[in-house]
Amino acid sequence: MTHDAFLCGRLHLWQPEKGYRAANDAVLLAAACPAEPGQSVLDLGCGAGAASLCLGARVPGLLQAGLELQEDYAALARRNATENGMALEVVTGDLTEMPPSLRRGFDHVIANPPFYPRGGTQSPVTGRDIALRAEIGLAPWVEAAARRLEPGGWLTMIFSTEGLPEVLGSLGKLGSARLLPLLPREGREAKRLILRARKGGRAGFRMLAPLVLHRGAAHEGDREGYTPRANEILRMGAGLLAEFG
Amino acid sequence: MTHDAFLCGRLHLWQPEKGYRAANDAVLLAAACPAEPGQSVLDLGCGAGAASLCLGARVPGLLQAGLELQEDYAALARRNATENGMALEVVTGDLTEMPPSLRRGFDHVIANPPFYPRGGTQSPVTGRDIALRAEIGLAPWVEAAARRLEPGGWLTMIFSTEGLPEVLGSLGKLGSARLLPLLPREGREAKRLILRARKGGRAGFRMLAPLVLHRGAAHEGDREGYTPRANEILRMGAGLLAEFG
Repeated sequence: MTHDAFLCGRLHLWQPEKGYRAANDAVLLAAACPAEPGQSVLDLGCGAGAASLCLGARVPGLLQAGLELQEDYAALARRNATENGMALEVVTGDLTEMPPSLRRGFDHVIANPPFYPRGGTQSPVTGRDIALRAEIGLAPWVEAAARRLEPGGWLTMIFSTEGLPEVLGSLGKLGSARLLPLLPREGREAKRLILRARKGGRAGFRMLAPLVLHRGAAHEGDREGYTPRANEILRMGAGLLAEFG
Repeated sequence: MTHDAFLCGRLHLWQPEKGYRAANDAVLLAAACPAEPGQSVLDLGCGAGAASLCLGARVPGLLQAGLELQEDYAALARRNATENGMALEVVTGDLTEMPPSLRRGFDHVIANPPFYPRGGTQSPVTGRDIALRAEIGLAPWVEAAARRLEPGGWLTMIFSTEGLPEVLGSLGKLGSARLLPLLPREGREAKRLILRARKGGRAGFRMLAPLVLHRGAAHEGDREGYTPRANEILRMGAGLLAEFG
């Protein structure tokens, strides 16, 4: 286990040294969720709680719940919430058979689904296998989110670009979708995307101006390579809200 | 009618002064099609022939056909092909009931479907109404293209960003999809997208680094506002191929 600082030390999270470890994706996801104080948020596949706790650190007074398939990660999420002084109701279960205690309506759903790069070899570490394995694809995530959202509620999801056709093909009652491409550097392909979509929304689909994460043309070997905007979000805990218009 | 220069005067096209007029979209579409000499290309909704003739100007020796719903535009496309010394078989008909003479396989299909901005008012000019009316949506265009392509053949399509969910939701047997966002300027939203997808393709979906069309932060009132790469494509007739990897 390691005890890692997030948001410039505002949060500390226990995570397994090997296996799935939360990273920038969880912080970006939390930053992009437009939750307001007093609203309810469900984190599908919450892992050790990184996205939920980052969101709680930015927006006070949320009613937060998380669903996690793996009991050991669920236990870590509960411990991380407690040690960071936040309330997070963590339920162990499968999103395709939503546990009864979470069968209620939420103002927001956030999700950082597992991904499994094509042609990649499977990690020998079981926790990481399950967390990164995209066995069920992304449609069940979108569908589970749509079922749990109140009318007018928002899904905010970060996912691998490869999954876009499946995600857009499974929106169902989610509309007013906006897509934020994340570019590792200026002029590069977007490898990750953040989608926001609203239950019952009727506005047209929009693709927003991309967010560039790193400065310069190549990896410089330290964290200071972030663009100013990425630094605000990833280290200083700013919301990724203006970008969504 | 007007007689307009395309690709720095390499082509001249007759177009109605009022009504649908081909513009940068047709040139960008032609630039993005990876056709090679000797291959066959079907232009769905060819209008006055701008995209097909731009493609023929870049790639010699193609076997080109166009389908056009409106007889007056089809007649213009025939005249434009003849006057520019190119062979283009233009058939009048509806893509949802493909004319028998086009029920064969093509190596490429290109399409610049009509679009109809949300909340926009209808133009009083009938030709333009029909050309820009998105009555049938984009799915029938994608489906007609998929039916006409040979296995391994490519669809290249330019369309309004709003249509992306419908397009990605109707790919069917088209895979290996790659999406090129077109940004009017750096840091702006992509309003138009170019998709390439291959019949039977199995590679993962990719979103390519965006192509920025104009320099600077605002309209400067002349054509010289293009970025160097956009200028190569729109005025000098270069292919938009490197971007698709």
